[in-house]
Amino acid sequence: MTSRTARYKDDDLAGEPPSTADNAALDDTTSVEKLFEAKPVPPWTKQLTVRAIFVSAVLAFAFTFIVMKLNLTTGIIPSLNVSAGLLGFFFVKTWSKVLAQTGLLRTPFTRQENTVIQTCVVAASGIAFSGGFGSYLFGMSSIIANQSPEAAAAADIKNPSLGWMIAFLFVVSFLGLFSVLPLRKIMIVDFRLTYPSGTATANLINGFHTPEGAELAKKQVSKLGRFFSMSFLWSFFQWFFTAGDDCGFSSFPTFGLQAYKNKFYFDFSATYVGVGMICPYIINVSLLIGGILSWGVMWPLIANKKGDWYDAKLKSSSLEGLQGYKVFIAIAMILGDGLYNFVKVLARTLSGLYKQCYKKDSDVGPTDDSSHGHPPSISYDDKRRTELFLKDQIPTWFSIAGYVIIAAISTITLPFIFHQLKWYYIIVIYIIAPALAFCNAFGCGLTDWSLASTYGKLAIFCIGAWAGSDGGGVLAGLAACGVMMNIVSTASDLMQDFKTGYMTLASPRSMFVSQVVGTAMGCIISPCVFWLFYKAFGNLGSPDSQYPAPYALVYRNMAILGVDGFSALPRYCLTLCCAFFVGAIVINLIRDMVGNKYARFIPIPMAMAIPFYIGSYFAIDMCLGSLILFIWEKVNKENAEAFGSAVASGLICGDGIWTLPSSIIALAGVKPPICMKFLSRATNAKVDAFLG
Amino acid sequence: MTSRTARYKDDDLAGEPPSTADNAALDDTTSVEKLFEAKPVPPWTKQLTVRAIFVSAVLAFAFTFIVMKLNLTTGIIPSLNVSAGLLGFFFVKTWSKVLAQTGLLRTPFTRQENTVIQTCVVAASGIAFSGGFGSYLFGMSSIIANQSPEAAAAADIKNPSLGWMIAFLFVVSFLGLFSVLPLRKIMIVDFRLTYPSGTATANLINGFHTPEGAELAKKQVSKLGRFFSMSFLWSFFQWFFTAGDDCGFSSFPTFGLQAYKNKFYFDFSATYVGVGMICPYIINVSLLIGGILSWGVMWPLIANKKGDWYDAKLKSSSLEGLQGYKVFIAIAMILGDGLYNFVKVLARTLSGLYKQCYKKDSDVGPTDDSSHGHPPSISYDDKRRTELFLKDQIPTWFSIAGYVIIAAISTITLPFIFHQLKWYYIIVIYIIAPALAFCNAFGCGLTDWSLASTYGKLAIFCIGAWAGSDGGGVLAGLAACGVMMNIVSTASDLMQDFKTGYMTLASPRSMFVSQVVGTAMGCIISPCVFWLFYKAFGNLGSPDSQYPAPYALVYRNMAILGVDGFSALPRYCLTLCCAFFVGAIVINLIRDMVGNKYARFIPIPMAMAIPFYIGSYFAIDMCLGSLILFIWEKVNKENAEAFGSAVASGLICGDGIWTLPSSIIALAGVKPPICMKFLSRATNAKVDAFLG
Repeated sequence: MTSRTARYKDDDLAGEPPSTADNAALDDTTSVEKLFEAKPVPPWTKQLTVRAIFVSAVLAFAFTFIVMKLNLTTGIIPSLNVSAGLLGFFFVKTWSKVLAQTGLLRTPFTRQENTVIQTCVVAASGIAFSGGFGSYLFGMSSIIANQSPEAAAAADIKNPSLGWMIAFLFVVSFLGLFSVLPLRKIMIVDFRLTYPSGTATANLINGFHTPEGAELAKKQVSKLGRFFSMSFLWSFFQWFFTAGDDCGFSSFPTFGLQAYKNKFYFDFSATYVGVGMICPYIINVSLLIGGILSWGVMWPLIANKKGDWYDAKLKSSSLEGLQGYKVFIAIAMILGDGLYNFVKVLARTLSGLYKQCYKKDSDVGPTDDSSHGHPPSISYDDKRRTELFLKDQIPTWFSIAGYVIIAAISTITLPFIFHQLKWYYIIVIYIIAPALAFCNAFGCGLTDWSLASTYGKLAIFCIGAWAGSDGGGVLAGLAACGVMMNIVSTASDLMQDFKTGYMTLASPRSMFVSQVVGTAMGCIISPCVFWLFYKAFGNLGSPDSQYPAPYALVYRNMAILGVDGFSALPRYCLTLCCAFFVGAIVINLIRDMVGNKYARFIPIPMAMAIPFYIGSYFAIDMCLGSLILFIWEKVNKENAEAFGSAVASGLICGDGIWTLPSSIIALAGVKPPICMKFLSRATNAKVDAFLG
Repeated sequence: MTSRTARYKDDDLAGEPPSTADNAALDDTTSVEKLFEAKPVPPWTKQLTVRAIFVSAVLAFAFTFIVMKLNLTTGIIPSLNVSAGLLGFFFVKTWSKVLAQTGLLRTPFTRQENTVIQTCVVAASGIAFSGGFGSYLFGMSSIIANQSPEAAAAADIKNPSLGWMIAFLFVVSFLGLFSVLPLRKIMIVDFRLTYPSGTATANLINGFHTPEGAELAKKQVSKLGRFFSMSFLWSFFQWFFTAGDDCGFSSFPTFGLQAYKNKFYFDFSATYVGVGMICPYIINVSLLIGGILSWGVMWPLIANKKGDWYDAKLKSSSLEGLQGYKVFIAIAMILGDGLYNFVKVLARTLSGLYKQCYKKDSDVGPTDDSSHGHPPSISYDDKRRTELFLKDQIPTWFSIAGYVIIAAISTITLPFIFHQLKWYYIIVIYIIAPALAFCNAFGCGLTDWSLASTYGKLAIFCIGAWAGSDGGGVLAGLAACGVMMNIVSTASDLMQDFKTGYMTLASPRSMFVSQVVGTAMGCIISPCVFWLFYKAFGNLGSPDSQYPAPYALVYRNMAILGVDGFSALPRYCLTLCCAFFVGAIVINLIRDMVGNKYARFIPIPMAMAIPFYIGSYFAIDMCLGSLILFIWEKVNKENAEAFGSAVASGLICGDGIWTLPSSIIALAGVKPPICMKFLSRATNAKVDAFLG
């Protein structure tokens, strides 16, 4: 599995993003790992300390609370990796300092331990999202069912209860960990996928632990700190103007109201500007092209067919209308790209395995780079990181065995929890899931965007349609969504964390154990926190309450639609999906055939598909990030290479950390005082007349 | 008059703003004048070319159009100095290039000529403002009189007519030029007042004319250009969001809605951020202190006395209510400061004259600096500039004779135009006016803020009260306002231009002639343009028309109030005015007594008074400018000193030039499409309910 895959990088994924901004940038000026050379890397068992687990549990609880609140209010959850890394550092550092003063400190605080905490917290709080407390799981309840236009059969309702929720999470949450575990070397070492959040977190952690005397690192940390503060204060400032829907900077019609309606605007999100600075140019450009193609050309054209291709009276959020085209064409394109890459990698892996078995070419690892024609520019950092990343192996048989065993347990247990979910549905899901998990982890590595919920929606439709309305298809669909989402979401989180671990020399083994521990924590903490909300706020889920849980209703409605099968889709939607599925594969083929020289000008379908569904606003943020980096490189290349990554990380972290106080403020019932509203001149005149 | 005044700088105005950012900043790193050494300065008669006058006339026409439109729509007129300098350059440069290619070019285009054009255009377009076409002059008309609550007597109405308007302007507009002419050396050379707009214009003009090969100057011009573009684009961007009142960035409640109501907010004006970078720190801090004292403490306290100190039913704009305190206390403080400085300077000037007459110490000028204990740090730039500034003298007898002759003509003529304005009123105005003109020119030099309209309001009240309602006091007041405004406004404009001339080595004589020519142009162009508006738009001045001319009604109402005398002022207002008048004098006394060491921490009353009336928003802009410069100096002092001035000028110019296209857009009837509105949470909920 691990043999010779290194050489695929040269010819096959030549057009893939070179790791422009992350480690490569730092290597040219100075090596991060050289600074850390004097610090020994503890063995993986020493990276997992008791204090790390304890701090993780405390932070996991705090973060779960935040995520749950976001789940139940808007349903939009930002990446919490960086916050976890930062807070983990502060907690343990304070702890260490106190202990050091009392003379009780035995083990120094290492960056590996820091990464372990971060990983554990992310795994635990991730369950709060993928557990579907604001979406599919809560969508099964009678509170939500009663809001749906269609009367619900008893078979389509399952009210929340602490017992079955914990059991359900335990049997489905660990599968994602095993599903992509064997692919970590391909993703991290061979493809060198960026994983912007993971990279930012790693830079943050490295910055904190840099040994003294390292001048550039200090400067980087100071730069990171400055942009962290700016980004944090900016988010804080933005908050004041968000009283109400469509208020604030995130609804700023930068390019006019017409463009805003088509989701072309700059939403002033420091996070995505930072992400854009970390992502390669081609990704950001692909996103923008995708956005222009879809929201600028296709959706307006399809909207013109309103009443012809689909019912004109449908709500804009209905999947039988325009929204259906958006969601399903995006899914088709993502599937096309993801499966192309999956098949390609699989074929190469198998051929590599085959060759290894016959030739016994046993010299595996980064040291054989040159013999395989690797470019000689592999930096010291990458060498050292790869070495340690490959030191503590996790055998492939372990992953496969783990997956199969848990899948078996799950297949037996799940029908007891949801009798509508037949065992053969589950088996089918478990056969397809690893491919989708790979797609998601791969896409997330390119763009930082986890599409777990999209894959979940796919499961709703497929399984729902299969089960049909007689077989309790709605509940089967929602449960299937849960199974699928847990796998693909955990898979991308894990890979994101492996990237962080790679860059901080944390052992994959300690990372994996930390993930397992974190997941177990999450399976208990999340349902409990949800239960608290559920009991504390009697009207949880009702539209006019403080916690309307908007996505719960959305998911339920999708499931209701799903039981009618693909026939419910609007006209030509399936045709278009097929076209884009094939198109994605063709583009990938072309990219692979024309060679690196031209491939870097051909957009990546995976990246193009994302704005299809959610619009271009974040693509514009990211392109701005690219632009800033581009100009910076023109003005002062050395400076940009040394500090670009730190600035980007600062932007991402500051905005990320703000979610913590903002959630606390929201929980305390403090609401923003001002609404910054954008009205057309005509509407404004009406409003002025109304107010005055 | 010119003897020994140079030494006053050391002891008397020690606490006065040192010219931190303007020329001194450039001197330390490199001398501007050294770069220009090779370029001969043409004699003053050669600075006044035919092409300069021609270009001035064209630009004057364009600018008058703009100012007139602003007069009649909002009444807020930004400083157009920089635009005039820039456009003058482009016009003549293009002209020169075309002529040079045809081989017809005789005289090269010099920066002195550029300054002459700028001065001429400013003088001409200034009349469009001080002529009162949007305020006192139009306020005399029956259209406006009919909107006033009180029925107007025939004696209080005078409808516009081309003839009398031109005659009126001709007899009053030239007085300002003569009134402060003798004080130019004191203001520019001895006090080294900043005149931010004038300095910015000079830097711009110097930048354009810098001989090739001057590396730093080129960099400065490039920096200026970059910030000019940014500022221009920013203003352009802002425009899109200003559909309606209280819309857009200029109404951004940066510190919350409560603070916004009290005029504490950052209004995103690049102009004032730039002005803040040019003004000394103490000025900006004084402005902010004044704003906090008035809008933060005094006005809220006085507002609590509503119904007790003044009638609670009054409109907020009524001068019998809170607005009265704001306007009159500000006027009192400005008068206190202005008169203190006027008396001080007068005393010193007389004593200097006295000494000169007796001791025959004839060595006057900058060369005797050291013998008078001047700091040896006087730079080459200042030496050269002072030398040329003092070379072409304008005799003091000329100024005094000019003033007396024109005042005499005016005193005879004016009662024929406005028979309500008695000759003795006019004489009183002409006796007081030079003092007020000095105050305004001095204040403008410190803060860039011309308070011409404030002095005009003072005249409305004083003369209106004197004339009384029987003697056609309303019209007498408005006419008196016109006389006063023209004098003080022209005085500050002239001094602003002298500063530009000083920094570009233009001769005071050519500047003066250019001002005279420009004023004459303005006296003809402005009434004609107004006449065009008046005839083209039949409903000019009616509240719901495209050109409501808001200030015309305001001025008329003030005049109606004025005829009742000071007794109409709200309770304790006169007492407070006296207290602040005395306070301003006391603060100045303290500043002069404690010495430079402490004086620089004592705020300047003149600067403090300005926000009393209009609020702190521009003070916050300016403090931000200070802060930027302060941080920049901390980070890279050399860089900040070399480029601070260029950046500030760029910001001021870009925003200023935008007024040109924005006016053209507005005249073309194109309105901004979006309103960026700020609503409280409660109001927003109401609006959402109304819209949805």
